[in-house]
Amino acid sequence: MADTRTETDSFGPIEVPASAYWGAQTQRSIENFPFGERERMPIAIPHALAIVKQAAARVNRAHGLDAKVADAIEAAAAEVVAGTLDDQFPLVIWQTGSGTQTNMNVNEVIAGRANEALTGKRGGKAPVHPNDHVNMAQSSNDSFPTALHIAAARTVHDRLYPALNRLTDAIEAKVKAWDGIVKIGRTHLQDATPLTLGQEFSGYAAQLVAGRKRIEAAAAGVLLLAQGGTAVGTGLNTSPGFDVAVAAEIADLTGLPFVTAPNKFEALASNDALVHLSAALATLAVSLTKIANDIRLLGSGPRSGLAELMLPENEPGSSIMPGKVNPTQCEMLTMVAAQVIGNHQAVTIGGLQGHLELNVFKPLIGAAVLRSIDLLATGMESFAERAVDGMEADERRIAELVGRSLMLVTALAPEIGYDNAAKIAKHAHHERLTLKEAGLALGLIDEATFDRVVRPEDMIGR
Amino acid sequence: MADTRTETDSFGPIEVPASAYWGAQTQRSIENFPFGERERMPIAIPHALAIVKQAAARVNRAHGLDAKVADAIEAAAAEVVAGTLDDQFPLVIWQTGSGTQTNMNVNEVIAGRANEALTGKRGGKAPVHPNDHVNMAQSSNDSFPTALHIAAARTVHDRLYPALNRLTDAIEAKVKAWDGIVKIGRTHLQDATPLTLGQEFSGYAAQLVAGRKRIEAAAAGVLLLAQGGTAVGTGLNTSPGFDVAVAAEIADLTGLPFVTAPNKFEALASNDALVHLSAALATLAVSLTKIANDIRLLGSGPRSGLAELMLPENEPGSSIMPGKVNPTQCEMLTMVAAQVIGNHQAVTIGGLQGHLELNVFKPLIGAAVLRSIDLLATGMESFAERAVDGMEADERRIAELVGRSLMLVTALAPEIGYDNAAKIAKHAHHERLTLKEAGLALGLIDEATFDRVVRPEDMIGR
Amino acid sequence: MADTRTETDSFGPIEVPASAYWGAQTQRSIENFPFGERERMPIAIPHALAIVKQAAARVNRAHGLDAKVADAIEAAAAEVVAGTLDDQFPLVIWQTGSGTQTNMNVNEVIAGRANEALTGKRGGKAPVHPNDHVNMAQSSNDSFPTALHIAAARTVHDRLYPALNRLTDAIEAKVKAWDGIVKIGRTHLQDATPLTLGQEFSGYAAQLVAGRKRIEAAAAGVLLLAQGGTAVGTGLNTSPGFDVAVAAEIADLTGLPFVTAPNKFEALASNDALVHLSAALATLAVSLTKIANDIRLLGSGPRSGLAELMLPENEPGSSIMPGKVNPTQCEMLTMVAAQVIGNHQAVTIGGLQGHLELNVFKPLIGAAVLRSIDLLATGMESFAERAVDGMEADERRIAELVGRSLMLVTALAPEIGYDNAAKIAKHAHHERLTLKEAGLALGLIDEATFDRVVRPEDMIGR
Amino acid sequence: MADTRTETDSFGPIEVPASAYWGAQTQRSIENFPFGERERMPIAIPHALAIVKQAAARVNRAHGLDAKVADAIEAAAAEVVAGTLDDQFPLVIWQTGSGTQTNMNVNEVIAGRANEALTGKRGGKAPVHPNDHVNMAQSSNDSFPTALHIAAARTVHDRLYPALNRLTDAIEAKVKAWDGIVKIGRTHLQDATPLTLGQEFSGYAAQLVAGRKRIEAAAAGVLLLAQGGTAVGTGLNTSPGFDVAVAAEIADLTGLPFVTAPNKFEALASNDALVHLSAALATLAVSLTKIANDIRLLGSGPRSGLAELMLPENEPGSSIMPGKVNPTQCEMLTMVAAQVIGNHQAVTIGGLQGHLELNVFKPLIGAAVLRSIDLLATGMESFAERAVDGMEADERRIAELVGRSLMLVTALAPEIGYDNAAKIAKHAHHERLTLKEAGLALGLIDEATFDRVVRPEDMIGR
Repeated sequence: MADTRTETDSFGPIEVPASAYWGAQTQRSIENFPFGERERMPIAIPHALAIVKQAAARVNRAHGLDAKVADAIEAAAAEVVAGTLDDQFPLVIWQTGSGTQTNMNVNEVIAGRANEALTGKRGGKAPVHPNDHVNMAQSSNDSFPTALHIAAARTVHDRLYPALNRLTDAIEAKVKAWDGIVKIGRTHLQDATPLTLGQEFSGYAAQLVAGRKRIEAAAAGVLLLAQGGTAVGTGLNTSPGFDVAVAAEIADLTGLPFVTAPNKFEALASNDALVHLSAALATLAVSLTKIANDIRLLGSGPRSGLAELMLPENEPGSSIMPGKVNPTQCEMLTMVAAQVIGNHQAVTIGGLQGHLELNVFKPLIGAAVLRSIDLLATGMESFAERAVDGMEADERRIAELVGRSLMLVTALAPEIGYDNAAKIAKHAHHERLTLKEAGLALGLIDEATFDRVVRPEDMIGR
Repeated sequence: MADTRTETDSFGPIEVPASAYWGAQTQRSIENFPFGERERMPIAIPHALAIVKQAAARVNRAHGLDAKVADAIEAAAAEVVAGTLDDQFPLVIWQTGSGTQTNMNVNEVIAGRANEALTGKRGGKAPVHPNDHVNMAQSSNDSFPTALHIAAARTVHDRLYPALNRLTDAIEAKVKAWDGIVKIGRTHLQDATPLTLGQEFSGYAAQLVAGRKRIEAAAAGVLLLAQGGTAVGTGLNTSPGFDVAVAAEIADLTGLPFVTAPNKFEALASNDALVHLSAALATLAVSLTKIANDIRLLGSGPRSGLAELMLPENEPGSSIMPGKVNPTQCEMLTMVAAQVIGNHQAVTIGGLQGHLELNVFKPLIGAAVLRSIDLLATGMESFAERAVDGMEADERRIAELVGRSLMLVTALAPEIGYDNAAKIAKHAHHERLTLKEAGLALGLIDEATFDRVVRPEDMIGR
Repeated sequence: MADTRTETDSFGPIEVPASAYWGAQTQRSIENFPFGERERMPIAIPHALAIVKQAAARVNRAHGLDAKVADAIEAAAAEVVAGTLDDQFPLVIWQTGSGTQTNMNVNEVIAGRANEALTGKRGGKAPVHPNDHVNMAQSSNDSFPTALHIAAARTVHDRLYPALNRLTDAIEAKVKAWDGIVKIGRTHLQDATPLTLGQEFSGYAAQLVAGRKRIEAAAAGVLLLAQGGTAVGTGLNTSPGFDVAVAAEIADLTGLPFVTAPNKFEALASNDALVHLSAALATLAVSLTKIANDIRLLGSGPRSGLAELMLPENEPGSSIMPGKVNPTQCEMLTMVAAQVIGNHQAVTIGGLQGHLELNVFKPLIGAAVLRSIDLLATGMESFAERAVDGMEADERRIAELVGRSLMLVTALAPEIGYDNAAKIAKHAHHERLTLKEAGLALGLIDEATFDRVVRPEDMIGR
Repeated sequence: MADTRTETDSFGPIEVPASAYWGAQTQRSIENFPFGERERMPIAIPHALAIVKQAAARVNRAHGLDAKVADAIEAAAAEVVAGTLDDQFPLVIWQTGSGTQTNMNVNEVIAGRANEALTGKRGGKAPVHPNDHVNMAQSSNDSFPTALHIAAARTVHDRLYPALNRLTDAIEAKVKAWDGIVKIGRTHLQDATPLTLGQEFSGYAAQLVAGRKRIEAAAAGVLLLAQGGTAVGTGLNTSPGFDVAVAAEIADLTGLPFVTAPNKFEALASNDALVHLSAALATLAVSLTKIANDIRLLGSGPRSGLAELMLPENEPGSSIMPGKVNPTQCEMLTMVAAQVIGNHQAVTIGGLQGHLELNVFKPLIGAAVLRSIDLLATGMESFAERAVDGMEADERRIAELVGRSLMLVTALAPEIGYDNAAKIAKHAHHERLTLKEAGLALGLIDEATFDRVVRPEDMIGR
């Protein structure tokens, strides 16, 4: 039939769609791993592999790679990076654990596109061969983990940091705006001593700032590249200095400070750097859960909850309860966080099962980390824009609650001792009195002292 | 512009694509949760919700729902179930935690399609209203968890069980075929007493059979439906007996023995049944990891591994090492298993964070469970077909290994005592002798006794 | 020195404390795994191993074990089971992954005690030998997993079920007591339609009842015993029928319906039954977190929280805030639940890493499962006794909250349609009106209809 | 009865053992949380709290604390730190989630001991009061998380780093010793190109070095102290500068560079720093699993495994198979790693559930992190001493395996192309030939070229 052409590999000939740039090994993988389209390898990984191919062609040019072939590889790889050939990467996450098939997919597409440019005929292995030329001085075993590091570093840089900054800024704006609103504190979900609403939100900002530092520290690990280790870490079939040179080219192509990994055996056999990046993402997910959950609590109501915050109304909340509005952005963010923590578990299990010279859970690890980054980035941006920016404090409600708190008694403890202060609080609670009423009734404090000491606005540490 | 029309909800008017069947609330959700296409709610969930709508229309017909409207709802819902309107469900997993927006998406599409059928005009709320008619006697709070149960039960039934049976059968075939092949056992990865290759594989089959039972027990939990609880579990706005009747209709529509949940408060406020189904999937993932990992070990080599099994060669294994063949199906299956275990962690975290009358991690939980089922099903099928069916035993290698094992000495222990037997084994090991040589050298056994007792083929428990 | 005596094994002589019943292998393990006392193997495991030894001695008696030796073994084992020799089991969890050293510890202590009874001299290997007699027809590879199953089944039976019943009963008592208290429902932590406090608690009871069923189903798996498989599952060195007979003796000794596992290869090589029991415990932990967290929320206050429940005051709550009382039992229970879920992760990771004929993460798995059971049992008992029993409803507060809810509007939707009802709720919310005020102001309802329809006590599904 | 005395708190009088230094609140906690001795709060936490009390007394002396009282507090606290009062801390992990009861236990014991020193009478509240003096300017809400940070930092410093260094050094010694041993590489557990045994082990060393850096980065987070935040983070009831001063005193007492946390609201409401330290421990556990598992694989045999390494024989390996020796230290270490990963899950779940001004999963988090550190430290030390130091390479076996590998063909690919090289490898494999035989048979290479190019010792990247 006219719609296919024949490609070959060491297993023999196989038909591929005539329109495809890919070759025999990609086609075999399509047939061998029949997961659906939803399970495709994240496109950031083929893009990153194409960066590797560009960089390798630049270095190989000085070590025997024909200049015309090198030019054609670079040009085709640039198209892949630009995203114009995204439909040429049909393979799924669930394939060989080294990512060999996705590496070959990229090798074949670049060769197929380069051959088309040079000969007018799409595909094939001449004049540009997917292994001998596009994959020259490389193995999947070093190219694929290199690509995972590139993809992770780029996505953290391009997507996660801006989103994290956006959310931090949104919260910092509330810290400033709400600096003067004195409210009741709650510990153990029980009434406690007061603080300002701005102080409360300053804790969230501090969590995010610390989270960013943790991710930066962890992401430093993915700036070390396996490339140059080839099959088992020894660098067999590379020219001297290839590893350093190729990392420099990758740094040049991406604008990120990649360098060659100091130990290539570790860089192939373990994926610890990605595991730990995932861990830092999970810690951020922990922080985000706390923040979103607090906002959900503070916004609970409108009439039977804490009701200190009024969240933006973005959509109807219920298909049965008319007029209901729900904290949907909080729900989105806490669900995203749960998936990120789950992904970290998957990554952990993949990370610990490496055998000898190669960890073969790489596609799982790479795909899970990239999904976590994407979910967190979109989640934080949306949460900042649709929940935090538009939140308002219900100052009337806040003032009402802080005024009747029993834990203002804490300010009395240095005056009359913990034990006497406790008696006043208990008496007030059980008799439904105010603190002052209880204190006077018990004769443990005089009115003037009470009025001088028990002032919420003086209890906030300024 | 001609390409949109105006739809309205309690938030006011909003433009939707003219071609869309959906209405205002779906459109709002598209804009409020800007995750990519890859994060779409699994289509099995809108399908299952449409089953709910069909069933509810059938019951509501007897309780005031206009017959023409009911007919139109049933017809439109049937189209959704049949999959011809799949492009009408653009919403993502990460939305409101009750799944309200996907419920409304289904309500709106069914209303929009029904209205088109009745009036020629797509969309809108008349004569069929998405809330008052399609969602009649329902809330997202009961419809969405009902749909998750339906989707999970159907996918387990249609996809998981056949795949699990397929793999069990493939392994059972090996149990039979390899019944007579005596091989060395290994415990602690150290040489141990012999067994047959068939016995070894019978352990895997037993794991799968037990795994199926565990999933059946857990899946019984998702046959209980929340439908009829409406907003908080009380069944407000339902007709008497609605819950029982709608479950019966759903059972009729799906052919699965769904019944109404005995306690609707639990059915809305917790997702424990799905959490536990996920747990059973994770236990199966544990079993599959063991099986795939063993096969990877037994097939290691070809020249420097255990090399007792020869795995089918499905594709070239390396982009740098010519002729290499790898256990790629084992790698795929163990990666899938790791993701399933990670998903269970996400589901667990979602499951434990419910608040009062509603758990709002439902889309996360549903999507993760459905993905786990899909991954396991495709993974097991592929593994059976591309790894197990074609595996062969290297009988020459197996015989060679069992013959030289030191642990055959175990058969001597009842004859000469554990301590003397240990002396023989240690002497043989350190002097690189055979057991018989060592036993005779130490004078602890005579040749006739040795030959009578130390017979691998008699040590396999037959 | 007089305080030690010399014991020997295949590694040679070693000094053990003169007072110890144990022998050389136990002593070696003490020295080779220097974890602290806190990491000791849970005593339930040596107890269960002693039950195995009793049972085996009974069966072996008919197959060549000298009656006097058998009697002495049975008697010594009975002492271990009774707990009078608990200080003789100093080994830690973190040892060989088959539990061999704890099995040998039990073998040695029983032999040492039996020899003392028979000869007056503690310890040694004659006339009772730890391997040849106490361990006769056994391997650690079948005895240890058998003991884990026995220990888990007994602890579930003796500790977990009573505690789970105790908590279920405590909650059921509240279901009855609070049957008539109509309160506001909350979904998404936002005000929703009403239910009774008894209905709310009935959801918790339903979770616990379902949790018990899940644990029963999972615990059925640990009634299957590996015993009789010996080293690799073939039953080498056992007499015919040993496996069935020994399981019957164990059932007799424990009063629990243990039977021999149908496939011994699976029973040694996997720990799936324990993994799945752990999973069921984790699902219960999910339920308990929900329940305790709800109670914490409902009891929040006393003046600035939801404050619908009054929790028992068990202790002073704060070292700085006098008179503070906190939901400490809720905190204890949710912490316990988190550890149980974490333990399940450890068990999962142990469960998936088995190799060929033996999973060597058995002590980890056994210890984690037993700790989870203990934590849950004590946690539930304490929670029932110190939190649930004494909880009281604040009916005044509850009535106040339900009366002002906007979501009572839901009852109007069938009368005036979802869209009009939504208008009333929104108007009431934004203008801080009552529903009736808003409905009349908008002219969407008349007073008589409103008063007839909007009655919380009629909205609870009775 | 003479064996008790009466102590009081705001709940009234209660009997405590006459011998105890503790008071009423400790006694109440013993009765309210009846978990067994095994669940005691790790002693490192009371020790760390006592450091807080010492430091606070030093600072409070300048702000109104009577010098004699301050002296007595310091002296009693020093005794607690020294460990001579360890039996005075009977409380368990599973208590109030703020650790209030353990804080009060420390307050009461220090007061009780100080009062004894000053008056001759043990216990009581005068002249030294547990709240007003020992806990002066503190809350459990800042003292307890401060103590967790101190305990974690000290244990990491005193236990983890030395153990990690010990193991790193042991592996580095093998890297050097085995620098010249050329062996077969294995990827996907299939034969691959060669490397040296020293190179293989250099990957493990690199993992450990990176692991140490990750832990150092994470542990920097626990050098920030909550102390000075008191009840909700505002520092109510502290003197100006108390937070900075107390951190300086703690730094002085411990020799570790603690400073006050920049945001006290974050420091009370979240435990992110501990969560992330736990994450770094879990990443190390991932690395250790890889390393121990590789060593187990390389040491598998002795006759039917890879058998490249000979592990030290530390103990008899089997209760049934005489003479068996197992990789027990590998098993111990991988079990420990699994528990550490499980603990991280528990910590994660605790970390994400904080509410408003306080996370109340602190005892769980602290106890789990401390156990993880202890397990890793003892595990690594033991593994270094009993597995790594004594390991030997079986050079005869290693040479035999590398010589017959088919993947040496990789060196030919740059000479004759990937496709031809693949043909040779496949022909050799299927016909059971050597590579040279296959290459010559296919006419794809001449003998001289083969001998020049295919030299394992030249394929290791030197």
